[in-house]
Amino acid sequence: MLLNREFLNAVEFRNIEKGLAEILDLWKNGKFHISQEQEDCHAAIEQYLTEKYGSAGQKIHTGRSRNDQSLVMIRLYEIAQLKNITKLCKELVETWSKWIKKNGKTPMPGYTHMQKAMPTTVGAWQESYKNALEDAGGLVEAVIELLDQSPLGSGSGYGIPLDIDRKATAHELGFKKVQSNPIYCQLSRGLFEAQTLNAAVFIMTALSRWASDLLLFTTSEFGYFSLSAEFCTGSSIMPQKKNYDVFEIMRANLTVVQAAQFEVQQISGRLYSGYHRDLQLVKPPLVRGISVTLDTLETALVLAPQLQLNKEKLAASMTSELFATTKVYSNVKKGVAFRTAYDNVKRSIKRN
Amino acid sequence: MLLNREFLNAVEFRNIEKGLAEILDLWKNGKFHISQEQEDCHAAIEQYLTEKYGSAGQKIHTGRSRNDQSLVMIRLYEIAQLKNITKLCKELVETWSKWIKKNGKTPMPGYTHMQKAMPTTVGAWQESYKNALEDAGGLVEAVIELLDQSPLGSGSGYGIPLDIDRKATAHELGFKKVQSNPIYCQLSRGLFEAQTLNAAVFIMTALSRWASDLLLFTTSEFGYFSLSAEFCTGSSIMPQKKNYDVFEIMRANLTVVQAAQFEVQQISGRLYSGYHRDLQLVKPPLVRGISVTLDTLETALVLAPQLQLNKEKLAASMTSELFATTKVYSNVKKGVAFRTAYDNVKRSIKRN
Amino acid sequence: MLLNREFLNAVEFRNIEKGLAEILDLWKNGKFHISQEQEDCHAAIEQYLTEKYGSAGQKIHTGRSRNDQSLVMIRLYEIAQLKNITKLCKELVETWSKWIKKNGKTPMPGYTHMQKAMPTTVGAWQESYKNALEDAGGLVEAVIELLDQSPLGSGSGYGIPLDIDRKATAHELGFKKVQSNPIYCQLSRGLFEAQTLNAAVFIMTALSRWASDLLLFTTSEFGYFSLSAEFCTGSSIMPQKKNYDVFEIMRANLTVVQAAQFEVQQISGRLYSGYHRDLQLVKPPLVRGISVTLDTLETALVLAPQLQLNKEKLAASMTSELFATTKVYSNVKKGVAFRTAYDNVKRSIKRN
Amino acid sequence: MLLNREFLNAVEFRNIEKGLAEILDLWKNGKFHISQEQEDCHAAIEQYLTEKYGSAGQKIHTGRSRNDQSLVMIRLYEIAQLKNITKLCKELVETWSKWIKKNGKTPMPGYTHMQKAMPTTVGAWQESYKNALEDAGGLVEAVIELLDQSPLGSGSGYGIPLDIDRKATAHELGFKKVQSNPIYCQLSRGLFEAQTLNAAVFIMTALSRWASDLLLFTTSEFGYFSLSAEFCTGSSIMPQKKNYDVFEIMRANLTVVQAAQFEVQQISGRLYSGYHRDLQLVKPPLVRGISVTLDTLETALVLAPQLQLNKEKLAASMTSELFATTKVYSNVKKGVAFRTAYDNVKRSIKRN
Repeated sequence: MLLNREFLNAVEFRNIEKGLAEILDLWKNGKFHISQEQEDCHAAIEQYLTEKYGSAGQKIHTGRSRNDQSLVMIRLYEIAQLKNITKLCKELVETWSKWIKKNGKTPMPGYTHMQKAMPTTVGAWQESYKNALEDAGGLVEAVIELLDQSPLGSGSGYGIPLDIDRKATAHELGFKKVQSNPIYCQLSRGLFEAQTLNAAVFIMTALSRWASDLLLFTTSEFGYFSLSAEFCTGSSIMPQKKNYDVFEIMRANLTVVQAAQFEVQQISGRLYSGYHRDLQLVKPPLVRGISVTLDTLETALVLAPQLQLNKEKLAASMTSELFATTKVYSNVKKGVAFRTAYDNVKRSIKRN
Repeated sequence: MLLNREFLNAVEFRNIEKGLAEILDLWKNGKFHISQEQEDCHAAIEQYLTEKYGSAGQKIHTGRSRNDQSLVMIRLYEIAQLKNITKLCKELVETWSKWIKKNGKTPMPGYTHMQKAMPTTVGAWQESYKNALEDAGGLVEAVIELLDQSPLGSGSGYGIPLDIDRKATAHELGFKKVQSNPIYCQLSRGLFEAQTLNAAVFIMTALSRWASDLLLFTTSEFGYFSLSAEFCTGSSIMPQKKNYDVFEIMRANLTVVQAAQFEVQQISGRLYSGYHRDLQLVKPPLVRGISVTLDTLETALVLAPQLQLNKEKLAASMTSELFATTKVYSNVKKGVAFRTAYDNVKRSIKRN
Repeated sequence: MLLNREFLNAVEFRNIEKGLAEILDLWKNGKFHISQEQEDCHAAIEQYLTEKYGSAGQKIHTGRSRNDQSLVMIRLYEIAQLKNITKLCKELVETWSKWIKKNGKTPMPGYTHMQKAMPTTVGAWQESYKNALEDAGGLVEAVIELLDQSPLGSGSGYGIPLDIDRKATAHELGFKKVQSNPIYCQLSRGLFEAQTLNAAVFIMTALSRWASDLLLFTTSEFGYFSLSAEFCTGSSIMPQKKNYDVFEIMRANLTVVQAAQFEVQQISGRLYSGYHRDLQLVKPPLVRGISVTLDTLETALVLAPQLQLNKEKLAASMTSELFATTKVYSNVKKGVAFRTAYDNVKRSIKRN
Repeated sequence: MLLNREFLNAVEFRNIEKGLAEILDLWKNGKFHISQEQEDCHAAIEQYLTEKYGSAGQKIHTGRSRNDQSLVMIRLYEIAQLKNITKLCKELVETWSKWIKKNGKTPMPGYTHMQKAMPTTVGAWQESYKNALEDAGGLVEAVIELLDQSPLGSGSGYGIPLDIDRKATAHELGFKKVQSNPIYCQLSRGLFEAQTLNAAVFIMTALSRWASDLLLFTTSEFGYFSLSAEFCTGSSIMPQKKNYDVFEIMRANLTVVQAAQFEVQQISGRLYSGYHRDLQLVKPPLVRGISVTLDTLETALVLAPQLQLNKEKLAASMTSELFATTKVYSNVKKGVAFRTAYDNVKRSIKRN
């Protein structure tokens, strides 16, 4: 764009291309260093180019600010990670589908208020989490749609007093459109990141509740499912122990992502318009929240196919009280009014 | 549906229709009462119908549970309120557009780090909030899409052992589709409500930051904008006071909605699958969060057109330091490398 | 104080005394009304006194502001409620002590990672919660100590330009000392209320985890404890149900109080010094958080003595793996090194 | 203790002493490594001792669990850091006292609702924050009192089946008393850490609001205070910029500590009794919250004495409306009833 608009001449443009390739090469070999004084990669790159290629380096910051460069970088990172999250969700949906095909028809008690309620199947139970991840897709898409606008050229929040071509840079960076109002580019800091984390919280809630269920269903008292010993841990004083720590970490990871969302929301929530240094603190919770979500999805992918049914325990758990509602409805089918049928079954249970 | 599937005969169906019309009429006249023992409207309606129409009343609970009835009710409430929120957002966007057309070109300092940065206009400032509300539209739509599935017939989370027609009831209630897995219906409690509130938080963040800006820009030190006295308050001991309380309430209201989102997320976050009474506590923060969002939008709609420019103050604020970057770029346009032009202007400022 | 400092004469003072007694009487009989225009009780009281007693009424606001009157009122409310909370905690500690004396020695499995770990007793389990409430005492005391300073006379945050006697009013209101810096009186808004709620969260965490344990231990799979049917609920479609909803509400109530603390922290967290209308929004979450804490304590007091042991289930649960560590240590007592003893027991378990 | 109770003989005891000294030495020289398989320092230490000193190493885990060792370590860390926090608070109080002595009498406008209210002084303003930090002392003390009980010997939450002397180890570790109930030791995980962070949030709220005030009072529009350029930053495109980033970071740091408190509260909030691996996730937010608090206090200590008054700006800001309440009260002193005096001044302002 700088070449097309003649802010760079052809020689400068080629020097920048060459210089950036050199820097990438140095970086890959661990030989490109950013000093404390340079503060960040943007200054280090400019300095390298200036020392080696003179005016090319001195012109590279034309039409931009460190501020909009950071905005671009964060947004590209988020979009890429949201796509990774979607990919892992789809793989997990696939994995669960296979598991359901194999194990799904085995009966299992359905619970309400932690008490036995009505019969269900391990397939119906597992499918509920599959459905949640499927629905997550639409939310993630809406967030990507929101983020898919280029802030490059918004400068420090008040544009660049130069005739730059924002459409061209948006297109080259792969953004769908330009985020035209530069003050809105700043306003969207934190606001957009909270949306990214909100989609992650939706997914993590499903995974955390799946893990909670499994922690209950792998107790010796319930005992419906198990994992082989290689996925479990022992204890430093209790030699008999087989613990499902991995589900506990998955359960708690939800909180890590929720706290990250909270942190991002609060940092940006009541600031005045325009950039504030506070907003730099959005990055750690954003990266933390995304990383934990990716890790948890990857862990779930490893564990999901390994989940074994304890068929005897499941069969023994299908006790008669689970069928009380079925009895009610078998009378409804014969024409008895629902309330009468319900009262009759209730009375017969109390008599026993 | 119950008639079509022959769980009700034609007489029972007509009696229920009549009875429900009577109840609605009594309710409108303040004469339909729900007693402590009845717990909720569902029991009260059934009892009324049973006392007056016998078997019709005893059959009305066929194919449903109080549980899925509540789910339906909450979801219809949310969808309706999200549509109201969208409508108010659009009106506010319209109102701001008109205000921008009238006032937008007046210059105004742009700030970063709360210090004067570069020139902008009151229109660009106002437009940034307009853009945020426009983008909110996509998020709200995605939430409505998520919620638009009928839980009726999921019973207490394990379906109804009777051949009911869930598609028919979904259609009659105006839902796009059936939420087929009944365990997922329970899993979505809280999970979906957190999404509703998340969309509200996005909108409230924009409104709260708009209010924050206005609290700063209406101080006597900045003084760029004002409202007439009828929108302001006084003090019980300071006779000179003109306070912009209304913006303070708008600013703080964001926190109310964020706390509601937090409460909903936490209540449902780590429960086992299946219904738990904990989930009843989702309702107060949901209603609180939605009401505060609607109130704040309505307040903004009243205030937005009333915002007056103090043109002298604005003109006086356009001091020379705001134009330093313009000077840099006027030299860039003449062919000076950006970094050289920047350093020259910086040196000249220090000399003064 | 106003009389002693001669801002009121003796007649005016007597009229105010009389007038306030009349107002109290009217109030008790539901006959003292506060109109929309009066905004609050302070204005209504002044108007009543002025209409009936002239100058006495016009002088009653001398030396104060609605602002510091509200501060006083909130603080007295908090101190009183914290004392109520302490009283209820002590009663619950007493109740649990009696229960432990009666039931404490019955063996019970101790769990880690939700798996059987080592033997314990129902007494040791119950005592852990008792200890938590005992330790809460020190925290509540520290909060009362913090709050026990009189803001009266701080006006709207910048004092009153009149020679009032703040020590005298502090003493008459029962405060330990004067909060002398009036700007600090404003700074403590929200800051102090978050401390009140933090002490409540400590207590609620103990009660919520007690309720969580009981929800697990009353499942049919564990079955260690039960309550009689009068404390449980049924279902609208499952006639067999006995649900422990009351523990679910207790578990979820923690979240309500945490959300209240969060709301208060956030409202006051990043304001400028001096009063802001935002701070008025501190009241609803404060009252909500305190009320839920009091309700939950009162509920626990009703339930605690009713908790029944299912002795057969408890006896059957004391299976051999719980004693693996005991075996290790019985060898340690005979002189075997801990790690050798541990490895031996671990090997013997694996062989079986 | 193990020697006194004869679980170690004198030779073994000496070997352990020697071995631990060696390990410390290796550690200081960066030569003691913990491998992935060893998981933590406890296993690495045991293995080192066993390889070098045989039975001494195999006996070192006698009477403890990794679980209670971690609990001890966290608690000692918290107590030490809370004492550091107290020390820094005292230094800051001292620094502010000196600053007040030097600058305190300069008049300054007092604000409510961000509008000029009544006259105050820079000393009164600064003192309000000093008072907050002084009051923090009592809260921190109460938390230390709570934490000052030794969990060593509680094993994994159900004690050690061996006659160990918990009082002796508590005393040697510097704890005030034994936390006797081992299930309570587990219950206090997270619960106690949330208290540590809550005290930190109290302090951080004061620092964050101080920083907020300074961000407002260093704008060019207010301009009451300044820092010299070495504490400020510039911009990559605006050559004129002098930004107070350091106060923005301080303002935002409050959120980091609040999010840490939130994370800790939520992880431990609704778990069953007994240890869960979830609790391991308490450590990162605990350390993050404490570190940020210490950093912010140290930064405040550097900045506080550097804060310069802009006397002309301050003098010019003392405009007449600030004295309206003084006028009211000068008439009250002459015997005019407060409300009459107030109404008279209000009318005279409106006339102008």
